[in-house]
Amino acid sequence: MDYQRLLDEIYVEVKPLLAKGKVADYIPALAEVNPSSFGMAVVTLDGSVFSVGDAYNPFSIQSISKVFNLVLAFSRLGDAIWDRVGREPSGNAFNSLLQLEYEAGIPRNPFINAGAIVVADMLCELYPNAEDDLIRFVREVANNPEINYDLRVAQSERETGNRNFALGYFMKSFGNIHMPIERVMDFYFKQCSMSMNCVDLGRSFLMLANHGIVSHSGERVLTVSQTKRLSSLLLTSGLYNEAGEFAFRVGLPAKSGVGGGIAAIIPQKLSVVVWSPGLNTYGNSLAGIQALELFTTKSGISIF
Amino acid sequence: MDYQRLLDEIYVEVKPLLAKGKVADYIPALAEVNPSSFGMAVVTLDGSVFSVGDAYNPFSIQSISKVFNLVLAFSRLGDAIWDRVGREPSGNAFNSLLQLEYEAGIPRNPFINAGAIVVADMLCELYPNAEDDLIRFVREVANNPEINYDLRVAQSERETGNRNFALGYFMKSFGNIHMPIERVMDFYFKQCSMSMNCVDLGRSFLMLANHGIVSHSGERVLTVSQTKRLSSLLLTSGLYNEAGEFAFRVGLPAKSGVGGGIAAIIPQKLSVVVWSPGLNTYGNSLAGIQALELFTTKSGISIF
Amino acid sequence: MDYQRLLDEIYVEVKPLLAKGKVADYIPALAEVNPSSFGMAVVTLDGSVFSVGDAYNPFSIQSISKVFNLVLAFSRLGDAIWDRVGREPSGNAFNSLLQLEYEAGIPRNPFINAGAIVVADMLCELYPNAEDDLIRFVREVANNPEINYDLRVAQSERETGNRNFALGYFMKSFGNIHMPIERVMDFYFKQCSMSMNCVDLGRSFLMLANHGIVSHSGERVLTVSQTKRLSSLLLTSGLYNEAGEFAFRVGLPAKSGVGGGIAAIIPQKLSVVVWSPGLNTYGNSLAGIQALELFTTKSGISIF
Amino acid sequence: MDYQRLLDEIYVEVKPLLAKGKVADYIPALAEVNPSSFGMAVVTLDGSVFSVGDAYNPFSIQSISKVFNLVLAFSRLGDAIWDRVGREPSGNAFNSLLQLEYEAGIPRNPFINAGAIVVADMLCELYPNAEDDLIRFVREVANNPEINYDLRVAQSERETGNRNFALGYFMKSFGNIHMPIERVMDFYFKQCSMSMNCVDLGRSFLMLANHGIVSHSGERVLTVSQTKRLSSLLLTSGLYNEAGEFAFRVGLPAKSGVGGGIAAIIPQKLSVVVWSPGLNTYGNSLAGIQALELFTTKSGISIF
Repeated sequence: MDYQRLLDEIYVEVKPLLAKGKVADYIPALAEVNPSSFGMAVVTLDGSVFSVGDAYNPFSIQSISKVFNLVLAFSRLGDAIWDRVGREPSGNAFNSLLQLEYEAGIPRNPFINAGAIVVADMLCELYPNAEDDLIRFVREVANNPEINYDLRVAQSERETGNRNFALGYFMKSFGNIHMPIERVMDFYFKQCSMSMNCVDLGRSFLMLANHGIVSHSGERVLTVSQTKRLSSLLLTSGLYNEAGEFAFRVGLPAKSGVGGGIAAIIPQKLSVVVWSPGLNTYGNSLAGIQALELFTTKSGISIF
Repeated sequence: MDYQRLLDEIYVEVKPLLAKGKVADYIPALAEVNPSSFGMAVVTLDGSVFSVGDAYNPFSIQSISKVFNLVLAFSRLGDAIWDRVGREPSGNAFNSLLQLEYEAGIPRNPFINAGAIVVADMLCELYPNAEDDLIRFVREVANNPEINYDLRVAQSERETGNRNFALGYFMKSFGNIHMPIERVMDFYFKQCSMSMNCVDLGRSFLMLANHGIVSHSGERVLTVSQTKRLSSLLLTSGLYNEAGEFAFRVGLPAKSGVGGGIAAIIPQKLSVVVWSPGLNTYGNSLAGIQALELFTTKSGISIF
Repeated sequence: MDYQRLLDEIYVEVKPLLAKGKVADYIPALAEVNPSSFGMAVVTLDGSVFSVGDAYNPFSIQSISKVFNLVLAFSRLGDAIWDRVGREPSGNAFNSLLQLEYEAGIPRNPFINAGAIVVADMLCELYPNAEDDLIRFVREVANNPEINYDLRVAQSERETGNRNFALGYFMKSFGNIHMPIERVMDFYFKQCSMSMNCVDLGRSFLMLANHGIVSHSGERVLTVSQTKRLSSLLLTSGLYNEAGEFAFRVGLPAKSGVGGGIAAIIPQKLSVVVWSPGLNTYGNSLAGIQALELFTTKSGISIF
Repeated sequence: MDYQRLLDEIYVEVKPLLAKGKVADYIPALAEVNPSSFGMAVVTLDGSVFSVGDAYNPFSIQSISKVFNLVLAFSRLGDAIWDRVGREPSGNAFNSLLQLEYEAGIPRNPFINAGAIVVADMLCELYPNAEDDLIRFVREVANNPEINYDLRVAQSERETGNRNFALGYFMKSFGNIHMPIERVMDFYFKQCSMSMNCVDLGRSFLMLANHGIVSHSGERVLTVSQTKRLSSLLLTSGLYNEAGEFAFRVGLPAKSGVGGGIAAIIPQKLSVVVWSPGLNTYGNSLAGIQALELFTTKSGISIF
């Protein structure tokens, strides 16, 4: 497969869409991003990298970071994590608090905010300085020691994060947050502020396509079974309210972020990451979804 | 792969589970089934059939029939069906009516009851005698002219189907049911009463593993793209409240029924069907899920 | 108190509001009503009648009929009715189905549709021809043998009543409807179609102001305690989503209907009924609420 | 009316109930209260006080304090407060967060926790030291300069108040909390910790029975209209999930607290306060409700 040519073609085809999405503007750092940015990268199992556009431009990965948190917690704590967070798709956000109440403070899955906050709590319990352990882990799997948090973003997130604080306190009232809320939320907002580029993300997600092994180091992070299970979870729940639609159109395990990134994998083949900050009404990258749909259609590669 | 040996092994391993589930007892015809029944069948793309236990014993396929209805409607009406039914996982049943209200009578997906009733309405609009067209279609894809409705089951379903009537009227109040409720529900209850065995279901689901082509006749029912999309939908939403958990543990597109059947596919490889009437708390076959998990674990075949 | 002068004053003051409401138009019979109609009547304990405007013009009393049904059921069945219907205000309608599910098919109170359908079911169980017994009862308490159902309205209600059918089937699925749905709904739609004028309603509601005794016949319909309790229920729940607001502004036990009528009482003093078909966004008579607020303000009569 | 004899009779009759309720035990200060305590007081418009049992024993008034906050805010800010808090009964607590979301952060009424937190926010905006202004106000209307907060209770409330923090942050995310959450919650928990006895409460609630005038000082706190409106609100919403039931059985404007107190009024006649710490399943005083029902039944005094 000539992935480079594929990416080049896709770039041409999605260009008309770049102006159509709406850049997230609830915090300044996101609002300032050039709306016509577009980057895309493919990393194959042998470590080959293909890229187009702004693939080396760092952006705020936001919710994509939830995958790193989850992988770290899962690798360290194993199946015990599922006592505190579910594995079911979440349905619409409009009744997320109702579901949380109905299910006694157990979030439906680790990719909705409530779930990611619980995972953040687990890491805060596990590590005195979870921020350091997380960033070290991400640098390793991405093979890039320069990756870091963007503290200005973290600060802004915190200032506008009242609903996330509400989720945290609500779950604490059910006993499903163990550490002090301020501590957990501080870590949570930092985690979401991580700045990476498409290639970084492609390299780090490759481990999921590679049955749990980090290609460049040979280190096993997750077992084969754990990896398959996380991939399945990404397929059913990685794009929240649009997860079903994305699975229907694209059919790949993937995770999106409000910064406009989407990281996906084709198991045992490759990772593919796209970034375009204009969002659709679900808060997912408008051109990004289109680019990934073109990728599966044109390449004919699919898990189905 | 020695599928026969695999099925034999699985049968031995799940036997201790057969007594543990609870047979559906809301209608007599289901309550009378022998709780220790177990059948399993694999049908590969070349048409080979492997089976074990009661694989040739007919049972009430119940909600598995929703797949046939959907395939028929999708093949005839194309993407227009998605104007009236969504493609998102449904979350917990406890708030399904709330979701239906919030989304103005558009069910989240075609595999929850509300969604299947809408699809039934589409077929009633399309065909003067939808029952006849549906059963003819199922007989063709299953290559078995003997398949039929079980009218005693249909009658019992109707008598206990007040909640389904409520769903129908509720959607009609939003204009999302076009035909008279009595007509639609009559067809809906008949559809659910279809009696088939594991091999029948394996043969008929093979079309989904085969990119839309019925193997024994060579007839294309769905396009490649349509088939992949339905497979994806089955993965995210085929086992309702347990869909995420099933995807996590088993990772295959599948549809379950309250009669204890589960039909699954491995795209481009095979279909695999299991039947064991004892249900878990989600209303899915307890031993059936275990059997399918063993199947993917032991065979190593997986889409992830 | 010079009630006649009071009514005359109120009529003048509310006239500018008559054009502002929106007449119910979901059925022809309601849509055809002259939007600038306005009638008001006061009936005091001694039987004196004061009226203004279209007070003798019959209109469709709609949900006001729920009070008659409830009084009849309560007088016949006593506190046993509260096993099947609650006494709590209902909150917003948007989650009424959720509440019904949460509370296992027991409606929150007898004035929401679900509650009135359950009461209708009780009467259908009690009387072979509940329609006849109800209309006879209403004629007696209103002292008007001419009162009747408007079968054209009943028929229209039935044709547009899908949501009410949904409620009925939903409660039947919980076992809280005992008679066949078709029978119950038929009676329910008939009951709502009753045609009365302000004076009729004033005379019939007087029994609630008179501690349960029908003034003109001396017959006791409810005990003192039962009457006080129903009055309290009307105060907390008589105008559904606007019950609290109405209690806040007007502070009287009252019941409204989508035909534009509102019947209220001042215990141990009088009944006061207003009719003006233009509705506010809650489906209550816009000018009617204003007229009742003026009535309590100007008269200084209040229960608080 | 011989109120003393009435109270004595009631005391005898409710004694068997005192052991049946369950004392609140989520904080130590409440758990330590003697479960068989019972006090009751009546204060008539002329200032006469009648009492029985532990009527002079201070207890934690908890949610009854919401009335003082509301009166203070209403008297200072007038109808502007209704832009930020509703006047409708709240329905069941199980979906209170859903309602808050549906209504964009506007609580249904000032007596549910969310509503009281908004009122607390208003007072924090209005007064640099709202604690001081509130306690001064309460001392004045109760005519007792000794009344104070119980800081141990306030501290315990804060430590177990995660759900209230969640409500605060959730409403802040909608912009309906203006001051810092920590500040508002600090005041809120202090307010709830107020310690008063039945006679104190009776004296202070008398203002509501007296059309807004504090009897002993002659000072007008609320207008006649404002007073009637608050009384109406207490009738529809003063005992949250049991408000309808209480209105049905007792029929008086009242407010309860989890400390076991219930303060009620009969407009233009008297205030009546009861305290008994054993709670029913709704969190209201079990014997207290019974005592108030006996009071209205035996005295024959009623607003209906």
